Amino acid sequence: MAEEEKGRAGASRVWRNARLATLAETAAGLGEIERGAVVARDGRIAYAGPEADMPATPSGTQIVDCEGRWITPGLIDCHTHLIHAGNRANEFEMRLTGATYEEVARAGGGIVSSVKALRAASEDELVAQTLPRLDALMAEGVTTVEVKSGYGLDLANEKKSLRAARRLGVARPVTVRTTFLGAHALPVEANGDKDAYIDLVAKTMLPAVAADKLADAVDGFCEGIAFSPEQIARVFDAAKAAGLPVKLHADQLSNLNGAALAARYGALSADHLEYTDDAGAAAMAKAGTVAGILPGAYYFIRETKKPPIALFRQHGVKMAVATDNNPGTSPLTSLLLTTNMAATLFGMTVDECIAGITREAARALGLQGETGTLEAGKWADLAIWDIERPAELVYRMGFNPLHARIWRGQ
Amino acid sequence: MAEEEKGRAGASRVWRNARLATLAETAAGLGEIERGAVVARDGRIAYAGPEADMPATPSGTQIVDCEGRWITPGLIDCHTHLIHAGNRANEFEMRLTGATYEEVARAGGGIVSSVKALRAASEDELVAQTLPRLDALMAEGVTTVEVKSGYGLDLANEKKSLRAARRLGVARPVTVRTTFLGAHALPVEANGDKDAYIDLVAKTMLPAVAADKLADAVDGFCEGIAFSPEQIARVFDAAKAAGLPVKLHADQLSNLNGAALAARYGALSADHLEYTDDAGAAAMAKAGTVAGILPGAYYFIRETKKPPIALFRQHGVKMAVATDNNPGTSPLTSLLLTTNMAATLFGMTVDECIAGITREAARALGLQGETGTLEAGKWADLAIWDIERPAELVYRMGFNPLHARIWRGQ
Ligand SMILES: [Zn+2]
Ligand SMILES: [Zn+2]
Repeated sequence: MAEEEKGRAGASRVWRNARLATLAETAAGLGEIERGAVVARDGRIAYAGPEADMPATPSGTQIVDCEGRWITPGLIDCHTHLIHAGNRANEFEMRLTGATYEEVARAGGGIVSSVKALRAASEDELVAQTLPRLDALMAEGVTTVEVKSGYGLDLANEKKSLRAARRLGVARPVTVRTTFLGAHALPVEANGDKDAYIDLVAKTMLPAVAADKLADAVDGFCEGIAFSPEQIARVFDAAKAAGLPVKLHADQLSNLNGAALAARYGALSADHLEYTDDAGAAAMAKAGTVAGILPGAYYFIRETKKPPIALFRQHGVKMAVATDNNPGTSPLTSLLLTTNMAATLFGMTVDECIAGITREAARALGLQGETGTLEAGKWADLAIWDIERPAELVYRMGFNPLHARIWRGQ
Repeated sequence: MAEEEKGRAGASRVWRNARLATLAETAAGLGEIERGAVVARDGRIAYAGPEADMPATPSGTQIVDCEGRWITPGLIDCHTHLIHAGNRANEFEMRLTGATYEEVARAGGGIVSSVKALRAASEDELVAQTLPRLDALMAEGVTTVEVKSGYGLDLANEKKSLRAARRLGVARPVTVRTTFLGAHALPVEANGDKDAYIDLVAKTMLPAVAADKLADAVDGFCEGIAFSPEQIARVFDAAKAAGLPVKLHADQLSNLNGAALAARYGALSADHLEYTDDAGAAAMAKAGTVAGILPGAYYFIRETKKPPIALFRQHGVKMAVATDNNPGTSPLTSLLLTTNMAATLFGMTVDECIAGITREAARALGLQGETGTLEAGKWADLAIWDIERPAELVYRMGFNPLHARIWRGQ
């Protein structure tokens, strides 16, 4: 951030001579404004629109000339497993030399290894290991990030994960939303008894996490290799009782009607969705459940079935795009690259991609009133870019054109 | 680069307490040394091996404690079109909204638009537009980069491109190798007469470029949409007469036996190679022609035919991996991400990927005597990494674990 762009809390600041992509709900396309300005006051947007219509600002207002650069809302990564310990590069290497999943598992690989590593790590170590990943996201203009638990799989380690996630938002100028994902996988000590473990999640872990206010939402993994719709429903009932909104890893590897299940519970989002069908998409549209599109995992594990983007368009399902950062299936820390994958692999348009990491990502977190667009009243979360047109954000691969990042006016 | 790691030209420097991936020609795998050291003197490696066997260094030698970090050879991007003007994000955006190639062409898109933009740009503008791309590569430890002409397509503009490329190596601490690619596409003013244009390339442009010592090699695009093997042979004959080694864009979209043609001319490399057959691979092996694997373009334009990696292994063809950075089919400026694509999309192993951006990339440039491995006598080009194992360089997507980059000892 350039020196002239640092400000004091509470002060008014203006970014002028900018091109805006407001992503305003009612605007067409990206809500582009050719010669625009953004005014921030007390960390919120006081005005975003044509510079010519900008209200008078008090004397002492700090004014930044953007020299024609583009301003978008700060980016939002609405689905990550950013808190984890170690990595699974060894598995990746083994698989490339022809090892089967069984051989990888025998060598201690798979999610089991991530659970083991997380349980062995202290809360401080988790924060320290995660900050470089968070910094990589923030370097591309991310101002809000969702972080799930789900490698602890017992109360103490799930709480440790969520506390570590909350600390990320203290260590860095970024909004962190935490999600309790106890129903991610079955821990070894459950001895294969999924129902008993779900009982533990729903009756003990979730209420305790909620009581400590460690989670902003509850997520589950509904899949043959994870939990059944009926088991997930028990977790969602417990979430409802605790007053927490829900999300779901749904229909990634098979169609268990996860999308419809999520919609039935009014989920903020259902994510992955490769196998979601017409009925699922219709239910999501009706419930206002956002589709979380996660091309990183699709690419990394060489899936061949794409999520039904055309169906989502047809039904008017809103689409968010996220990294799904995790050590096993998506070791991805670039939200811009993620949009390139969404476009290249799934055919999402540039406008859909950019809305997917701003306005719709905010919606997927229940934060549509606070961030995700350049509109008066929302947090002054901005990304300022050295680009000639917004499409460049999606088109390039491995290039970061961020000029400056503003979080809550600073 | 940390302050203690800056040194003076000519001085001795030692990096100790490091794990080395030497990539030495005769070593197994990556040539890993658990507790190693590298000694540099006058910009060259004086020693690379176990720290225990390190020769005594003169007093005043600057010693860097690497704290167990990994050192690899500096990375080499051996195939780029880094010098170009503008970008083609607009085409990308059009295609995502369903525009056909014809519609894109009618809107002024395609390579024609890159030629137009390059011709309109001054040499200074080309350098200025290219430096951010070069900086992105260098930020990941690239110490040598190849840069092709090929958007000028007339003598003045090809020379301008190559001069701009040479200037990159003055503006930044990096080795630049230039390649004359006059036979890239047919310029509009040729009115469809490929033979006449090839005459111009072979008899006028190439000799003039060689006389000015602007190119280190000569390349061509052998494809139905570009030039025939017979036309390319005329360019290669002219290169031979001028004493310049050759390279070839071969067999990307169809099998014109480009690999065998390249081998017949003892080409340094043949690149792309999606359609190369057994005979082509055998000829390359016999000629020592390196296979340039370019997964970025494969990914970006949604090709479905993969290069025959298994055939190359079987015949012992050396494989390099490169970004192919260009505005039309591979706007990619991360060599690490490129290795992830080579592994994920083509099944190259971690060792093949890392050799492909170091030792084999050097060979593809005829620089195997100067760089690409950690061996005494070569340039002291190093990349120092915050990783626990080399596989992490390939496994992660959109993350840069570079700790420090050393070019010729500095
Ligand atoms: Zn996930
Ligand atoms: Zn190329």
